Amino acid sequence: MELLPDRQILFNRMRDTICGVYERFGFLPLDTPILEYSSVLLAKAGGETEKQIYRFTKGDTDMSLRFDLTVPLAKYVAKNYHTLAFPFRRYQIGKVYRGERPQKGRFREFYQCDIDVVGDGQLSVLTDAEMPAVIYTVFKELGFENFTVHIANRKIIKGYLQEAGLTDKTAEISVVLDKIKKIGAEKVAAELAVLGLSQAQIKPLLQLTALTGADFARFSCVDETFKTGVAELQTVIDGMKRFGVPEKNFTVDLSIVRGLDYYTGTVYETFLAGHENIGSVCSGGRYDNLAGYYTDKPLPGVGISIGLTRLFDKLGSETSAIARAAQVLVVSADGAIEACLPVAASFRAAGISASAYLEDAKLKNKFKYADRLGIPFMAIIGETERKNGTVTLKNLASGEQFEGITENQAAIKIKDAP
Amino acid sequence: MELLPDRQILFNRMRDTICGVYERFGFLPLDTPILEYSSVLLAKAGGETEKQIYRFTKGDTDMSLRFDLTVPLAKYVAKNYHTLAFPFRRYQIGKVYRGERPQKGRFREFYQCDIDVVGDGQLSVLTDAEMPAVIYTVFKELGFENFTVHIANRKIIKGYLQEAGLTDKTAEISVVLDKIKKIGAEKVAAELAVLGLSQAQIKPLLQLTALTGADFARFSCVDETFKTGVAELQTVIDGMKRFGVPEKNFTVDLSIVRGLDYYTGTVYETFLAGHENIGSVCSGGRYDNLAGYYTDKPLPGVGISIGLTRLFDKLGSETSAIARAAQVLVVSADGAIEACLPVAASFRAAGISASAYLEDAKLKNKFKYADRLGIPFMAIIGETERKNGTVTLKNLASGEQFEGITENQAAIKIKDAP
Repeated sequence: MELLPDRQILFNRMRDTICGVYERFGFLPLDTPILEYSSVLLAKAGGETEKQIYRFTKGDTDMSLRFDLTVPLAKYVAKNYHTLAFPFRRYQIGKVYRGERPQKGRFREFYQCDIDVVGDGQLSVLTDAEMPAVIYTVFKELGFENFTVHIANRKIIKGYLQEAGLTDKTAEISVVLDKIKKIGAEKVAAELAVLGLSQAQIKPLLQLTALTGADFARFSCVDETFKTGVAELQTVIDGMKRFGVPEKNFTVDLSIVRGLDYYTGTVYETFLAGHENIGSVCSGGRYDNLAGYYTDKPLPGVGISIGLTRLFDKLGSETSAIARAAQVLVVSADGAIEACLPVAASFRAAGISASAYLEDAKLKNKFKYADRLGIPFMAIIGETERKNGTVTLKNLASGEQFEGITENQAAIKIKDAP
Repeated sequence: MELLPDRQILFNRMRDTICGVYERFGFLPLDTPILEYSSVLLAKAGGETEKQIYRFTKGDTDMSLRFDLTVPLAKYVAKNYHTLAFPFRRYQIGKVYRGERPQKGRFREFYQCDIDVVGDGQLSVLTDAEMPAVIYTVFKELGFENFTVHIANRKIIKGYLQEAGLTDKTAEISVVLDKIKKIGAEKVAAELAVLGLSQAQIKPLLQLTALTGADFARFSCVDETFKTGVAELQTVIDGMKRFGVPEKNFTVDLSIVRGLDYYTGTVYETFLAGHENIGSVCSGGRYDNLAGYYTDKPLPGVGISIGLTRLFDKLGSETSAIARAAQVLVVSADGAIEACLPVAASFRAAGISASAYLEDAKLKNKFKYADRLGIPFMAIIGETERKNGTVTLKNLASGEQFEGITENQAAIKIKDAP
């Protein structure tokens, strides 16, 4: 994805908003290499993931491009274990690479915006309640109103399958259950039947995954893992409310299973009303052990990820941000272009973003330039202004014009503009 | 380079400072792919550059990692020529890749921070005066005081060599002259002699490159290119002054030749007093034609580049920025950890970055955590605070403690702290 300037400004604004929220929640920045030794990146990968990775040799060195921000985090935490303060709260916004065939809405090179909290041996389940609070704040500040964080806990399904004697099929069943939103309960039932489940096994399973609200706590199951899952989910929901997440912006949804074996407790997906077709715009969950491939230390964690490139591609035009190149364009009314330089410098010293138009062109073309770049003000310097040390300031939207004012007065008018 | 959190915060602050100045000068953001078709990136490259490039195949596709931000700019401007408003002012801050053997202070993956102004067929030489104004503002805001932008114009040397009948040796002579700062005039004279220059040719050449201040305008040479170079340099110096660059922060220095054939007029290098050994920290210049490999349109431009990774590695600790993870750590005085959640949410709603400590730990460990992360305030919630809806706020630097204050009062104290 390569954007034109006005779209790039909007993209950066979305990125900066996400970054700002992450920092407000006390997450620390991390930047890891995009290019890494394959032995580091691929320690854990296999199957489909490995096929998608960009891997190559340079001289004798086997290198790969990172395909997510979690593996680099695992390596980083393991390497710096003795230096970091735990719980380690980090955010990372950066590009990742997957060798998919590019298609509309899928990119080979795309931005992910991740946060994770990693504990040293233990991590309070209240941390799981903080993730939806971050998601809520991010999407709210991006200008979205109608979005819902769907929450489940994998221990609930896992415990139920244990009780039902289906433990050995947990992985396959999870993959099928994860499709409910896409293909519906009926087709899922058919696929479960193919896996060898009886109707007596399928029916309660679909009842369980269809539970919303507080009903999950009343589902009958005596398995200990199930009970732990229910208790954790209740703690998370209570914590989210305390963090100020409105009830309309989250829901318990036990159909959220997520295919990854990786997650062991709370899982999240986020859907935007009217855009359910693009899938989850922010997902994540709790994992028991982040860095088993790099260290013997048990490092439980919880995290979420926003696929920014895809989100922007689909919804960038729905945000309320305005793209403009600068607040003011400084131009000369005649050929004495150098007179623009100190005026532009003076605006910048006042904290105003100012572009100086230094080409010898007709005034009409200077207006056109400001218009194309979405610059709201133009400061015009002609003979009178040079003689008196003043500027003429024009509000290009309203057409209002102020003649013979000082640079300071102009700066105040620019700053006060909505 | 992979940094620990406190260093990463400083790095990001440097990057954000540079970005902020670029935006204040009205430059538009651009983000181009790191991974590109080799046919695009290598159109122009050859020799040493090509050897340093990370290049590989994925399936049938020949891909490379970008090695600078100029080639992607050229491709972008050519591709979007009919959509962009000229002069096109863009900045780009991103990673580039070179397969050098890593050594101290040189990285395979590093950040460059570039600005360029690209004209459509023409570009005022006053634009060349704006670059030093940007450099000055950047380094000033990064906290450096003693730095000097060295400026020359390649037309001066080129014109002189024409007059001296040495045109066919321009490239080799330029490479040798460019070493004056490193090896001194004596060794340069010896190398020029090896190139076949007589002492009568070497002496005035070294006199010319030794000129500083306004003396260059009095050097005797009737060549037209020489005269154009002198006139341009005078315009640039006059323009810089108008842009507010103090005389102590720039100097004419005709020994700045820069090896690259690429530059055709003004050239810049920037040195930090006391750190001349690390070489130029910001370089660039004027080029006649940016995108000759991608379009027939003549696109002159001028730009500069800051090697941020290297600058930070060498001088990151000399900036005055403070690294802290959050403004306040919210903790419970006892086991009722969930009481921290609404307090943290309330601080964040007030625009304060707040981290909540959610683990069950001794109060002593919570203090230690805040200390390790450089968090200046701690908000403590115990039984009394829960009952009264108040907080106890402690300034960890001064030890000052405020008991029984409201969240709003605490927020004000945190915001008012220096």
